[in-house]
Amino acid sequence: MSNKRILSGMRPTGKLHLGHYTGALENWVARQNETGPDGNRVYDTFFLIADYHNLTTSLETDDIAANAVDMVIDWLAAGIDPQKSPVFRQSMVKEHAELFLLFSMLITSSRLERNPTLKDQIRDLNMDAMTYGHLGYPVLQAADILLYKGNLVPVGEDQIPHVEITREIARRFNKHYLLPDGVAVFDEPEPKITKFSRLMGLDGKAKMSKSLGNTILLSDTQEEIMQKVRKAITDTQKVRKNDPGRPEVCTIFSYHRKFSDAQQVASIEQDCRSGALGCVDCKKMCAAAIAEEMAPMLEKRSEFSERRDLVQDILKDGEKRARAVAESTMQEVRQAMKLG
Amino acid sequence: MSNKRILSGMRPTGKLHLGHYTGALENWVARQNETGPDGNRVYDTFFLIADYHNLTTSLETDDIAANAVDMVIDWLAAGIDPQKSPVFRQSMVKEHAELFLLFSMLITSSRLERNPTLKDQIRDLNMDAMTYGHLGYPVLQAADILLYKGNLVPVGEDQIPHVEITREIARRFNKHYLLPDGVAVFDEPEPKITKFSRLMGLDGKAKMSKSLGNTILLSDTQEEIMQKVRKAITDTQKVRKNDPGRPEVCTIFSYHRKFSDAQQVASIEQDCRSGALGCVDCKKMCAAAIAEEMAPMLEKRSEFSERRDLVQDILKDGEKRARAVAESTMQEVRQAMKLG
Ligand code: SF4
Ligand code: SF4
Repeated sequence: MSNKRILSGMRPTGKLHLGHYTGALENWVARQNETGPDGNRVYDTFFLIADYHNLTTSLETDDIAANAVDMVIDWLAAGIDPQKSPVFRQSMVKEHAELFLLFSMLITSSRLERNPTLKDQIRDLNMDAMTYGHLGYPVLQAADILLYKGNLVPVGEDQIPHVEITREIARRFNKHYLLPDGVAVFDEPEPKITKFSRLMGLDGKAKMSKSLGNTILLSDTQEEIMQKVRKAITDTQKVRKNDPGRPEVCTIFSYHRKFSDAQQVASIEQDCRSGALGCVDCKKMCAAAIAEEMAPMLEKRSEFSERRDLVQDILKDGEKRARAVAESTMQEVRQAMKLG
Repeated sequence: MSNKRILSGMRPTGKLHLGHYTGALENWVARQNETGPDGNRVYDTFFLIADYHNLTTSLETDDIAANAVDMVIDWLAAGIDPQKSPVFRQSMVKEHAELFLLFSMLITSSRLERNPTLKDQIRDLNMDAMTYGHLGYPVLQAADILLYKGNLVPVGEDQIPHVEITREIARRFNKHYLLPDGVAVFDEPEPKITKFSRLMGLDGKAKMSKSLGNTILLSDTQEEIMQKVRKAITDTQKVRKNDPGRPEVCTIFSYHRKFSDAQQVASIEQDCRSGALGCVDCKKMCAAAIAEEMAPMLEKRSEFSERRDLVQDILKDGEKRARAVAESTMQEVRQAMKLG
């Protein structure tokens, strides 16, 4: 029995921040390295640089190639192993576009207009008009996943509607087209509900985000982390060192919960409330905990950050392997559809 | 200076009828063979089997491969010369899908919803819901044309809106993306208004159409033509041979105008009105005129109709040549967009 496949992707937005790490990358690496009782890997993982998806919300492409490399360096630093998992750009595997075009015939445009995430995006990005490609991004996602016959789609609760569109398209394809032996080309992939932990921004906003400038980058040095953490918002009512604080409203405390060990978290909570702990010291501990978690990444990334050509080689290799899978899927698609 | 390029296409609906001939094919062959004062060809012509477009209105693909071959046999019989003009299937040149995906980012979905032809199609085909791909068919058309850098698009008056969408997409692409030397990748193609003559159906309906079963096929023999013409509707008020008739309401007369010579047309008109000519004789002349025009095609098609493998070879060769042009365009597109 072959492994379950997981296709995960990110848009190439450049250097990644801690929010990307806790919100996705950490989970990607865990799935990549997960082994069963027999010691073998449980999943075949594919990691997609979703550069076409970028175009759905911005036509700016000047930095897209450099951003892809910067992002992949972070992936590699975080533990993505290109030997285990092909790492590749969507735009370099033509079959994504082919399957997107075919799938576009299998879903109505009114179904896509009802996509709730789309409405949120348009509001958040202040877009005055939605492009045709933007309307179709769940169709492109379906193509991304099914091209590699992804069986599992790790998603947060809020993204289940997207997986539902992929499942609908797979179902409709199988209803209309079967392989000569009556076998279906696609399995309907299952959503794998995953608790991704969101990270608050340094400014106390709900989310770390490049555009808000409230991030700690995976590529930040220990000193940079310290500097950024020093400026972070804490409980604004704790003005003097010995004022009692409220950890539950404090950004720094939310980081401790993620990066410090349980015992330390408990004592920080207590000492903050009692006023025994001041924010300056608390932040030092926080920066140290983050830096400690990041240290192996920082070391690993030094291999790559000066050797961008190495990353290009990794991409070329990943694209070759991804293309082989994609071509074999498209061959089945063409056979089932009796095209060509 | 290189030749102007023309990309023309048809959906693979199977054997063609006289309406396809007078409405398109005749013009295609004329453009293919048009030479300038220097004796050289004026246009580089590309002929596309638009199999992906088929999917916008029907998911049925069982007959699509056979229909494509049947159609191409008619193209070849009518004078399409695969040495001069690549003849190829859209689905066999992946770049159509790639450019479609990129172009989908350059037009809003509301712009596509305002496409008047789309509304007509949905009404005519009694479609209850429009697929996302159907909404986007003018985007696919734009990709078809611009992939081969078509400069001229032969269209009837009613199709000018389509060319306008292609022009808009080319303009928007050039606005956002230029080659490193500041050169635009695409010219905006010009519509070349062409008077296509529509042919009435044998049943007197405005249009010959496969679904109405009122057609003369390009592959019909002389006898089949005679039989079909014999049953055609004429002036219903001309009941007996010597009743005076009204050529202006008679299907057969409309065929004479297309296929008989001017002198004969004049005498038929006169003799029909006076009652000197009966419909039976008039139909015989009509069938003979059509058969005469079709005779060279009928001969030419015998080369191919028993040698479908020959047609496959022609398609393979055309696809190779089309792909070379398509790949070179996509290379420029990628360079301008700084992708990959
Ligand atoms: S002591 Fe620590 S947890 Fe408490 S408010 Fe200050 S930074 Fe936050
Ligand atoms: S004589 Fe000819 S033109 Fe006149 S009605 Fe009969 S078929 Fe038509």
